[in-house]
Amino acid sequence: MAPTYTLYGWGNTASTGIHWILAELAASSEVTYEFVDVDLPHKQQKEAAYLDINPKGRVPTLIVDGKPVTETGAIGLLLSELHPKSGLAPAPGTPSRAKFLETHTYVVNSLLPALRDWMYADKDQTNPEYAHGIRLLTLQRLNSIYALLDAQLAQSKYLVSDDEPTEVDFIMTATLSWDGFIDILSGQHPNLKKYTETMRSRPAWKYIEKKEGIVLKVQPWEEQYLTIKGNL
Amino acid sequence: MAPTYTLYGWGNTASTGIHWILAELAASSEVTYEFVDVDLPHKQQKEAAYLDINPKGRVPTLIVDGKPVTETGAIGLLLSELHPKSGLAPAPGTPSRAKFLETHTYVVNSLLPALRDWMYADKDQTNPEYAHGIRLLTLQRLNSIYALLDAQLAQSKYLVSDDEPTEVDFIMTATLSWDGFIDILSGQHPNLKKYTETMRSRPAWKYIEKKEGIVLKVQPWEEQYLTIKGNL
Ligand SMILES: N[C@@H](CCC(=O)N[C@@H](CS)C(=O)NCC(=O)O)C(=O)O
Ligand SMILES: N[C@@H](CCC(=O)N[C@@H](CS)C(=O)NCC(=O)O)C(=O)O
Repeated sequence: MAPTYTLYGWGNTASTGIHWILAELAASSEVTYEFVDVDLPHKQQKEAAYLDINPKGRVPTLIVDGKPVTETGAIGLLLSELHPKSGLAPAPGTPSRAKFLETHTYVVNSLLPALRDWMYADKDQTNPEYAHGIRLLTLQRLNSIYALLDAQLAQSKYLVSDDEPTEVDFIMTATLSWDGFIDILSGQHPNLKKYTETMRSRPAWKYIEKKEGIVLKVQPWEEQYLTIKGNL
Repeated sequence: MAPTYTLYGWGNTASTGIHWILAELAASSEVTYEFVDVDLPHKQQKEAAYLDINPKGRVPTLIVDGKPVTETGAIGLLLSELHPKSGLAPAPGTPSRAKFLETHTYVVNSLLPALRDWMYADKDQTNPEYAHGIRLLTLQRLNSIYALLDAQLAQSKYLVSDDEPTEVDFIMTATLSWDGFIDILSGQHPNLKKYTETMRSRPAWKYIEKKEGIVLKVQPWEEQYLTIKGNL
């Protein structure tokens, strides 16, 4: 019988990439899953019931064999190991394994923290007056990260291979879909633009997009950066 | 025959954790390795010869089977796969695998970027006047990351197990040894303090410490934060 997972998450957040991977696995009958809403706008992630499951008070959390697993990157790797036939990762010992681990780590260590900084620069701290400086640094980082990933995508259709996306493609494309400004910024790189279009044409993404109500729009606070980024 | 690796790195930087893992593997005759200096103070990491190997212009880079692999976290995972008997990671499918992947990812996605921000807040950007605001945010992040890891270390001697360190223990302890301020800050958490002492008592660390000339000292620019952090 296909294993069943429970994903704690909220629409259009860090949990979206994992939701997408589960939807892909479910489409090929590899798994069944349940999605439990953690209402971020109402701070449900900081309530005792959720902190019992994930003391960090963040989403996603995936329940695997009755135990909570946190961290998007960890869940992506774990699902690739639990479903070796899914193509979510090249198997250990195969020629593209090192490139996969390198790309996975670059996205988890560079892109995801930069995108968190972009969205949370004013919320992650007690000195929100410094948010603007943090966002300027983040813009510089994002531009060099996108340039590097764009160059990588000149070599293969997906980040790691030409055949099928791996877990890092789902995590990254979901994260790039957080908002309109990010989409514009990453879309200035032609290979990256084509790649996100290819990824977003997958039926499982269409399903997630609708289910999570994902709409790409530039937030009012982001508008000032639309002009700055041209100078970066 | 034991495989031979070439590590491109520089003393007391992100390459130190990988150097330490190689020294541990060499001590049990699992590998031999060569260390090639990339002179960061003289910006050798931005010279064409090195950019050919690692277009990101950073250390570490490990040559595996003639091919460069970048990203500390990726190299740690790859070495654990190439040396399954080393105990660098619990094997896929074993009970502690999920906890290992979660801890590895948390360190790579939260702690390492925060420590890079701490050290490079003024260098990673064209607006160094914002470095102070970035460092204040980073201090808050570091304190909550250390509290969480301290709680985890109340449960086991090493981050993932009671028996032996995994690759994440080497990477994390090496990173906490970057400078004196970081050592003081993390050392305010008793389990973390005991843990780094245990890790630093290993013969392979003693060797690395001497070889890389690692000395824990508070930098002049860090002194102002010695008083601020009490209020966080
Ligand atoms: N390191 C975590 C970060 C997850 C994260 O930042 N989640 C956000 C949603 S995008 C969250 O839960 N935010 C709520 C909060 O921080 O209170 C991961 O990669 O899974
Ligand atoms: N994401 C990389 C970051 C490595 C990194 O930040 N390395 C620093 C040394 S601590 C470096 O090479 N700095 C030189 C530079 O940025 O020019 C990793 O985790 O390996």
